[in-house]
Amino acid sequence: MRAAPLPASVDIRDVGPRDGLQAEAPVPVADRARLIDVLALAGVRRIEAAAFVSPRAVPAMAGAGEVMAAVDRRPGVSYAALVPNLNGAEAALTAGVDELTVTISASDAYNRRNVGMSTAESARVVAEVAALAGPVPVDAVVSCAFGSPYEGDVAADAVAGLGGRALDAGCARVTYADTTGMATPRRVDDLLDVTGTDVALHLHDTRGTALVNAYAALQRGVRRFDTAVGGLGGSLFAAGAAGNLATEELVAMLDDMGVVTGIDVERLLAVAAFVSELVGRPVPSRVASAGPRSRRAG
Amino acid sequence: MRAAPLPASVDIRDVGPRDGLQAEAPVPVADRARLIDVLALAGVRRIEAAAFVSPRAVPAMAGAGEVMAAVDRRPGVSYAALVPNLNGAEAALTAGVDELTVTISASDAYNRRNVGMSTAESARVVAEVAALAGPVPVDAVVSCAFGSPYEGDVAADAVAGLGGRALDAGCARVTYADTTGMATPRRVDDLLDVTGTDVALHLHDTRGTALVNAYAALQRGVRRFDTAVGGLGGSLFAAGAAGNLATEELVAMLDDMGVVTGIDVERLLAVAAFVSELVGRPVPSRVASAGPRSRRAG
Repeated sequence: MRAAPLPASVDIRDVGPRDGLQAEAPVPVADRARLIDVLALAGVRRIEAAAFVSPRAVPAMAGAGEVMAAVDRRPGVSYAALVPNLNGAEAALTAGVDELTVTISASDAYNRRNVGMSTAESARVVAEVAALAGPVPVDAVVSCAFGSPYEGDVAADAVAGLGGRALDAGCARVTYADTTGMATPRRVDDLLDVTGTDVALHLHDTRGTALVNAYAALQRGVRRFDTAVGGLGGSLFAAGAAGNLATEELVAMLDDMGVVTGIDVERLLAVAAFVSELVGRPVPSRVASAGPRSRRAG
Repeated sequence: MRAAPLPASVDIRDVGPRDGLQAEAPVPVADRARLIDVLALAGVRRIEAAAFVSPRAVPAMAGAGEVMAAVDRRPGVSYAALVPNLNGAEAALTAGVDELTVTISASDAYNRRNVGMSTAESARVVAEVAALAGPVPVDAVVSCAFGSPYEGDVAADAVAGLGGRALDAGCARVTYADTTGMATPRRVDDLLDVTGTDVALHLHDTRGTALVNAYAALQRGVRRFDTAVGGLGGSLFAAGAAGNLATEELVAMLDDMGVVTGIDVERLLAVAAFVSELVGRPVPSRVASAGPRSRRAG
């Protein structure tokens, strides 16, 4: 059977300035703002620009307010920030972000390591942040949605239940995150059977499955994805969990499939090269090394 | 729409000892034979073990006859060798291989660089090898089947035509190879629309699409894949074309999807670690770094 038709267009949120850089040696505020600006110039319409977290816990995210102030805000681009609690949400709202992201883990053990509280306590934080944010949309990111390195598989019903409660609490959207790269197309199908397809996926390439999982979701009609330019990223608290789905790997594939992203892949590759300079090593993205399929041998 | 059911089982040919090592610094015969043996012990039933080619053109493949003689041949395992011409085929048959692979490129420019003759001349060689091989099956590998770094896209009809002529000439099977990593699921669908699904695919991860292309083919019912343990490999004559689909990345995904491969992923990861030792650097496979999803955090 030929594959199901894919959506005509998809909505990509580049989390490179946040998830991509959070585990790296700190990058200066001006460079982080520049990264956000060149992503917008490449056509990225949604950018997770910063995290308003403790600089002691995550040194690479220090100066989130300064980053937001230094960004050349462009109309039509939504600048999001991750917040762990009410204090962070207040600071992010003061900095004028367009969207908040809050995380809650489907793995209680992971949640405790990540934010020092139980999943139930995090669910209360999510509700408080949504109440505080008022008209600013809050995206609840359910991490370890496809498995936990501590507990193993997490039932799809339980994962979807966390997302449903976040929506009930006033969140605008839910993103299911494969924090530790344990998803496969079958796990994607299983979760979407419960959640429906009006969700976003945040995929990691820890086991090389990020793109195939995105494709499985696209075939179901999912239209929203988190990616990171260069494929950088990885959890601070899950060993071996390295690499978000690279924005340019998704865009390069979608370009050839006729799915509109609004992103210029050649410009994006220039951004990936900039990221590589910022972190001082090649980025994991394969398209960043090889170029898109339209490149010819010299 | 939930994805189509996948085949109950798939047939994996590990080409690591040939395609994986051909562009590397030469590895001693005894180590190459050991690699073949441990692949068989991990459950791999088909192995491309050697190439009977000019040692001047491909130094890493020198000693193919010695490799075949040193292998501990196991019943139920098919040992294949790549041959470029009649001389190579004679040597391979003398060495007692179970299967021959011959290559013909859908890109005339690539074919000339690879074997110094036109695609039409290679078609004659394929027919001569098939005639010589008699009862030994010959697998015709159509390279650049999803695009050429020189000419760009190659029409699916023309690619399928090359495979059809190889079958007419007496080849037992056809494998379509994404030599330079230009395939996407859409290109896989386009080719399978013409060839039908009784084909094998040989996929490269140059642009991170090897696994998603395999998944697209699996959804169509394709049951035969070339992979290389560790994800090593790449053409000598196509810049940037690095990395076969890693056997362990496909097996790890299929294990979670309930598709039988007969291969033990943990044993395979030990083989990938051995390959890494042989080449003196980490292999590109992500599962080789992270382990299968069943691994728990320590």
